[in-house]
Amino acid sequence: MAKVTVEEARQLAVGEGFSIADVDPASTPGLPGGNVDDAFGTFDDELSELQEMLYANGRAGTTTGSILLVLQGMDTSGKGGIIRHVVSETMDMQGVHLKAFGAPTEEERNHDFLWRFGPHLPEPGMISVFDRSYYEDVLVQRVKQMAPPEEIERRYGAIVDFERSLSERGVRIIKVMPHISREFQAENLKERILNPEKHWKYNPGDIEDRALWTQFMSAYEIAMKRTSTEFAPWYCVPSDDKDYCRTVVKTLLYRALSSLDLTWPPADFDPEVELERLERS
Amino acid sequence: MAKVTVEEARQLAVGEGFSIADVDPASTPGLPGGNVDDAFGTFDDELSELQEMLYANGRAGTTTGSILLVLQGMDTSGKGGIIRHVVSETMDMQGVHLKAFGAPTEEERNHDFLWRFGPHLPEPGMISVFDRSYYEDVLVQRVKQMAPPEEIERRYGAIVDFERSLSERGVRIIKVMPHISREFQAENLKERILNPEKHWKYNPGDIEDRALWTQFMSAYEIAMKRTSTEFAPWYCVPSDDKDYCRTVVKTLLYRALSSLDLTWPPADFDPEVELERLERS
Repeated sequence: MAKVTVEEARQLAVGEGFSIADVDPASTPGLPGGNVDDAFGTFDDELSELQEMLYANGRAGTTTGSILLVLQGMDTSGKGGIIRHVVSETMDMQGVHLKAFGAPTEEERNHDFLWRFGPHLPEPGMISVFDRSYYEDVLVQRVKQMAPPEEIERRYGAIVDFERSLSERGVRIIKVMPHISREFQAENLKERILNPEKHWKYNPGDIEDRALWTQFMSAYEIAMKRTSTEFAPWYCVPSDDKDYCRTVVKTLLYRALSSLDLTWPPADFDPEVELERLERS
Repeated sequence: MAKVTVEEARQLAVGEGFSIADVDPASTPGLPGGNVDDAFGTFDDELSELQEMLYANGRAGTTTGSILLVLQGMDTSGKGGIIRHVVSETMDMQGVHLKAFGAPTEEERNHDFLWRFGPHLPEPGMISVFDRSYYEDVLVQRVKQMAPPEEIERRYGAIVDFERSLSERGVRIIKVMPHISREFQAENLKERILNPEKHWKYNPGDIEDRALWTQFMSAYEIAMKRTSTEFAPWYCVPSDDKDYCRTVVKTLLYRALSSLDLTWPPADFDPEVELERLERS
C-alpha cells in the first residue's frame, strides 16, 4: 500500500536555505499520483501499539522518553483535523495531553512568554499535543508588532534553548506547520461562512489575519529557519490536501516513537509467585 | 443492525430493590444471541456528530449543558477499554477531559473528599470522563475501613447533594459500573501475569482486593442504591463480554447527548457581510 516513507517525510524538514515560497501547498511529495487515501490508514496499528508501549513504560517508570507535537498554522490549515483524525483515532487518550493555547491571560502576560507552557509539557510516557504554542509569540506578535523587535529577536534563541533542554530530558519534539495556499484558505472560510454546521468555527478576525498573509508567511519562514534544529526540527507540510498532511504527521509520530527503541516494560513481580497467589485466591 | 436500544440500556439503571446478585455479569440484556459485535459500531457517526455539536455550542456560549461519565469498577473490569474504544474512537478529544484518579495526595486528604474533583468537572460543551472517582471514598474506604463509619455514612448524602448541584447547572451525569464475575477477573489477571505486553497493567495489590470481593460487591450495592437518582443514575452493566458493556455505554452517551436537544449554534455574524469581506480580501 502506498505510504509516505520516513525518508520522504524527513525531506519536509526545514533546513539551510529554506524558503517557504518553494513549498507548493498543493503538492504531495512522496505520494505522486494521488495515492493519499490509500496511505492514510497505513500506520494505524503500529502507531497505536507504539503509543501504548510508550505509555506503559511511563507508568512502569522505565523510560524518560516522551513526545511533544507542536501544531502551528494559519486559520483553517487543518490543525483540528490532525488532532481528530491522527491523534484521537490512533492514540489512547490516557497517554495524550492535548492543549489548545489562546491569547495569554493577564497573569500569563506578567511572566516570561514560555512560562505558561511548562505545565503542559509531557511527562515520561506521555504525548503532549499543542494546538498553537509559544510560536505565536514570534508569529502573530511579530506580524502585529505586539512586542518590541529586540524582544522578538530574543525569543528565537530562548525557544531554541528551551527546546534543547526538553530534548536533553528525553522529549522528542515534532513541529508541524500545515502549509495551505491563500486560495485554499478562502475556500475553507467560505465554507465556514455559508455552512450552518461550520458557523461556530468562523471568526470575523480571520479576515484581518488573512489580509496580512504575506507578512505571516515571512514570519513563519523566519521562525522556522531560526528554530529548526536537529533536536526539534520544523516540518513545513503541504496541506491543501488535508489527508496528505495527516499522513505525514502519522509518519513523523511513527518515526519519533520508533526512535525511542522501546520494548514492553519487564515485570516488576515474579510471575510464578503471582500465578500461585491468584490460584489460591 | 442489532443494537442495544435506549430503553434496554435504561433498564440497567439501579433502582428500588436493586440487588447486585441479580445481575449476571455474563448476560447481554437486549442483545440475545450474541449480536454484540454487530451492534458495536452502530452509534459511532451519530455520537460523533452530537459530541461535536455539544462542543460547538460550548465554544459559542449557546449551551450550559455538559456530560460527566463516571467509570467505577473492579480491577480488569474494562474501564480503560471503554475510554479507548468508546471515548477516544468516537469523540473529538478537544471536547473531552479525561481524568484518572489515584490515591489522594496529602494535600487532597486535608480537604473534604470531594474537593479534588472540582477542577475536573466539565465546562459547558465538554465531556468529562472520570476513571475512578469520589466513589472510591465510599467503596475502598468502606471495605478497608479507611474512614470512620459515620463519615462513610455522611458521604452518601454529600455525593447526592453534589451531583444534584451539578445537574442543576446543566451537567448530565452517567455513572457506570462495569460488572464482571470473580471468575472473569481471574482470567484477566492471569493474562496480565503471563503476557509480557500486559505486565505493566498488573499490580500485586490486585490480589488483596480480590480477596475482599464479597465485601466490595456489598459496598458497590450499597453505594449504588444510596446514590442512584433520577438526575445521576447508576448503571450496573454486565461486562464479562466487554463489547457488550461498551455498546451500552455508547447508548447511554447517545441518550445523554440527545437529551440536550442541541442544534448547531447560529452565526454570530452576518454571512452576507462576511462573504463580501472575504471576497474583497
